[in-house]
Amino acid sequence: MEYAAIEHGANKRYCYAVEKNQFIIRLKTKRDDIRRVVLHTHDKYLSMKQLDKAGTWEMKRASFDRYHDYFEVQIPMDVVCLRYFFELEGMDGAVSYYGNYQFYPEVIENLQHMFDCPQTLREEEQFEIPHWAQGKVVYQIFPSRFSTTAEVSKELWYKTPIEAWDELKGNLRGITARLEYIKNLGADVVYLTPIFRSASQHKYDTIDYFQIDPDFGTQEDLKELVDRAHELGLRVILDGVFNHTAPEFFAFEDVRKNGENSDYKDWYHIEQFPLRAEWGEKPSYKCFAYFGGMPKLNQINPEVEKYIMDVACYWLRTCGIDGWRLDVGDEVSHRFWKKFREAVRSINPEALLIGETWYYADDFLEGDEWDTIMNYDFYLAVRDFVAEEKTTASRFVETIGFLRGNIHKKVFPIFWNLIDSHDTERFLHACGERKEKQHFAAALQLLLPGMPMIYYGDEYAMTGADDPDCRRGMVWDEAYQDQKMYEWYRTLISVRHQYPALTHGEITTLAADDETALITMVAEKDNVSVTVLFHGADGTAEAGAYVGRQDLLTGQSFDGVLQPYQTAVFVS
Amino acid sequence: MEYAAIEHGANKRYCYAVEKNQFIIRLKTKRDDIRRVVLHTHDKYLSMKQLDKAGTWEMKRASFDRYHDYFEVQIPMDVVCLRYFFELEGMDGAVSYYGNYQFYPEVIENLQHMFDCPQTLREEEQFEIPHWAQGKVVYQIFPSRFSTTAEVSKELWYKTPIEAWDELKGNLRGITARLEYIKNLGADVVYLTPIFRSASQHKYDTIDYFQIDPDFGTQEDLKELVDRAHELGLRVILDGVFNHTAPEFFAFEDVRKNGENSDYKDWYHIEQFPLRAEWGEKPSYKCFAYFGGMPKLNQINPEVEKYIMDVACYWLRTCGIDGWRLDVGDEVSHRFWKKFREAVRSINPEALLIGETWYYADDFLEGDEWDTIMNYDFYLAVRDFVAEEKTTASRFVETIGFLRGNIHKKVFPIFWNLIDSHDTERFLHACGERKEKQHFAAALQLLLPGMPMIYYGDEYAMTGADDPDCRRGMVWDEAYQDQKMYEWYRTLISVRHQYPALTHGEITTLAADDETALITMVAEKDNVSVTVLFHGADGTAEAGAYVGRQDLLTGQSFDGVLQPYQTAVFVS
Repeated sequence: MEYAAIEHGANKRYCYAVEKNQFIIRLKTKRDDIRRVVLHTHDKYLSMKQLDKAGTWEMKRASFDRYHDYFEVQIPMDVVCLRYFFELEGMDGAVSYYGNYQFYPEVIENLQHMFDCPQTLREEEQFEIPHWAQGKVVYQIFPSRFSTTAEVSKELWYKTPIEAWDELKGNLRGITARLEYIKNLGADVVYLTPIFRSASQHKYDTIDYFQIDPDFGTQEDLKELVDRAHELGLRVILDGVFNHTAPEFFAFEDVRKNGENSDYKDWYHIEQFPLRAEWGEKPSYKCFAYFGGMPKLNQINPEVEKYIMDVACYWLRTCGIDGWRLDVGDEVSHRFWKKFREAVRSINPEALLIGETWYYADDFLEGDEWDTIMNYDFYLAVRDFVAEEKTTASRFVETIGFLRGNIHKKVFPIFWNLIDSHDTERFLHACGERKEKQHFAAALQLLLPGMPMIYYGDEYAMTGADDPDCRRGMVWDEAYQDQKMYEWYRTLISVRHQYPALTHGEITTLAADDETALITMVAEKDNVSVTVLFHGADGTAEAGAYVGRQDLLTGQSFDGVLQPYQTAVFVS
Repeated sequence: MEYAAIEHGANKRYCYAVEKNQFIIRLKTKRDDIRRVVLHTHDKYLSMKQLDKAGTWEMKRASFDRYHDYFEVQIPMDVVCLRYFFELEGMDGAVSYYGNYQFYPEVIENLQHMFDCPQTLREEEQFEIPHWAQGKVVYQIFPSRFSTTAEVSKELWYKTPIEAWDELKGNLRGITARLEYIKNLGADVVYLTPIFRSASQHKYDTIDYFQIDPDFGTQEDLKELVDRAHELGLRVILDGVFNHTAPEFFAFEDVRKNGENSDYKDWYHIEQFPLRAEWGEKPSYKCFAYFGGMPKLNQINPEVEKYIMDVACYWLRTCGIDGWRLDVGDEVSHRFWKKFREAVRSINPEALLIGETWYYADDFLEGDEWDTIMNYDFYLAVRDFVAEEKTTASRFVETIGFLRGNIHKKVFPIFWNLIDSHDTERFLHACGERKEKQHFAAALQLLLPGMPMIYYGDEYAMTGADDPDCRRGMVWDEAYQDQKMYEWYRTLISVRHQYPALTHGEITTLAADDETALITMVAEKDNVSVTVLFHGADGTAEAGAYVGRQDLLTGQSFDGVLQPYQTAVFVS
């Protein structure tokens, strides 16, 4: 038994409430090293009472990654304060007991040798995630290029290559006019990249956080968009660019003008006056990347802190938006996000907070900062496996298993799984325009657990290289639309919504066979079992066990063979 | 190489600033499995600039426990945002590269396969620990039994067995009169268990947080105590019992009187009316343990939150105390402590916060809650090794290594290391009155890194079983004092204060030999190297290498042999 690989702590990472008096306990071990784990529980104050609260709980191997297994159990908890230890049975049958970071050859009876979990007493520490987010599908819109009510020539709208500064005149009323389209596709949430006043087309360099960009419309237009979305049962998420501003933002303008005498000099991280920002040089103030165009705000300054909270709350209050996606979230401090969450939730307890980070970010997802992230780990795994064929089916499954085993139990099912975004090349472009690969990637995205985020136009097989090419005008003309891709997305979303096992169920199997490049997932809920077969390669794969069953994605009887990059779904 | 045992995350546990632009990076591995670790660093935005910021850093095996090695390096950081990976060389010479939670056979060149550390941009996240705490020695006082200005018969003062309710009339002016004594012993900090109005002698059931217990004196007496302490260069820490109150506290009184109609019913966790609390039954409201005498406050209630913050700030402001020890700290939520820290630090940025927890508590020690804890892991390790002889020297060293390797770099040197307290039997009692064992335990406590906490009277070899017997009247009469023990404590503290290597140095060796029960520690600072030999057993141990060197603890030339439970200190 590999003791050195066994990880657990009586802390918020391995032991926490998922609802009142329901606790999750997890244990990480070396993969395929431990056959069975039993949790033994006691009450810290046992000796002071008559009741016997000792319990034993079989733990389940809930997940695995390349190197680890993750055991898990959910237990009801009516003790005052939990103490516990683990009984571990190795593959060779040897048994060890693990308590308070030590291993013992015999059952632990000394309470001081057990783990101690006072969280049972801290019921306020629950991770409260908006209920409405469960199982939802997100549709990402880049407003300047999505839809417009203005006059724009087709020549300009469908221009390629497109340039960063091309003005296609997309606007909010254009989006409002397409909400029914989004609803019909099956999406539930509309996420808009920034819409506040800015000189760029992407608007990630904000000049005025309290003003809708005049090119996009007015505050009334946003209100109308949100109201109409809500009528349709859609939610609306805005993009909060609170890490940095445009240089033309009033506070930075003042610093540029008044230098060290500016009242706003502590709104930024100025290292030296006069300000200096030349291309290729490190600017004399902190900014996003090395690029002087986006000076970084100093959120430790209480004035800045208040200003941003006010912005966030203003749009929640006046237009009823449903949450914020937080740009460059991981470059802003934990301290700030904790306060931000409290401020936002005091206005709208159902507001969803999504952090942008390109990396595994467990320490922002402990219940008091963000609710979820844009899941670029998923993006990278799909790219490597499907588009670039650099990894195997099992490596893909292991990445999902890593996230599932490590991240907070409540977050994993609402990870914003993406295959591309405004910040990447289009998926279709990444896989050399092989549409069957996008079909397959979309199936992974829409059928595996998560809160999938579809980048506008992917449903019509839009292509495009990295920014700016991935930000082309949305293909509203049928001539540019791939109807087969559209129907595929609609079908996937519809199957997803029809079977709660896929969104709210328990994944009982998630396994890969590298010989056949076949991934099998079985999800269950309320006695309905859904099996998904993902065949991630060229050639064919046998799946004889399912011959004659109805494949929900085709509506046809399954012939026992999966074609290149085919997915099939069976229900029983 | 055991990949499954390798732990690292680009998060606040493994990668953080210790001062501006100085970062600590840590990596945990299986013990004795990795020969060499090299950290390779890059800049996330490297491609956007001309400068080459790539660097390589040799990591040091800074610590080990029974199962793991802990590698560590401190690096200066002037990149915008750090990316990095590890080069690992196994004992067999095989090399692997570890980035973004995956292992690779070749050097990692793809930035997306590296770890990503945006903390470099979040400089406000530093763990700010009061500078004054470094290297200090704490003296714990149980006020009702320590010293008095009242008339008390010797018969009562030295009564054994003592009962919990015996009134020895200890008071604050009595303590003030003994501050010079404490100073002469060499202690730097006085920590008083609770002093607010309460019906018990221990006063952990508070009736009025704004009133000094009349038996102890007045607010003026506290002010005088603190002022006098500060004149002597001593700091004063009070005990904050904020988890629960006495039933006679005004809010609970109101609940008892008015039941469901009480304005204060949400100040507690009432599960059912009418209130019920019978011995041996679970009370109908949450409380400390199962004991209905200490109802648990509901800190999620903003009124309660404010009330407690006001209490904490009141005593900082009016009497100038230097910090709070937080009773039953781990049963109060993270959310509360984060706010508590901000409130306290806004009044006194140098206030020290010490959590009571009997267990390893990393998630309260991330920089935004407590500064340190009462280190009961140390207590247990000393008990097991020295008093009960249940473990070995190496097991003791491994416990220290576990804490050193895992806990925040800034916290380890200020852990409140204790060998007993008001909540345990006296150390001397635990080891069957074998004074040489207490000599040895005190040496471990006062010479190893930490902020040792001496329980009043240990320095005169006071003994006593568990509470209430460990809370006897302090032995002020020479007839009861063990002068040899006192001189031993004075000598240890004096050596400790004389050699900053012991308190502020770098531990280059901390190793044990179980054959001889010999622990060797070497600590260095400013070219002064201090070697401590701890011989933790009966019989003798050879240490020929040090023959003829002066042992600072005896002042004599060392004869090469350590006697039972002897400690020796050499400087070069």
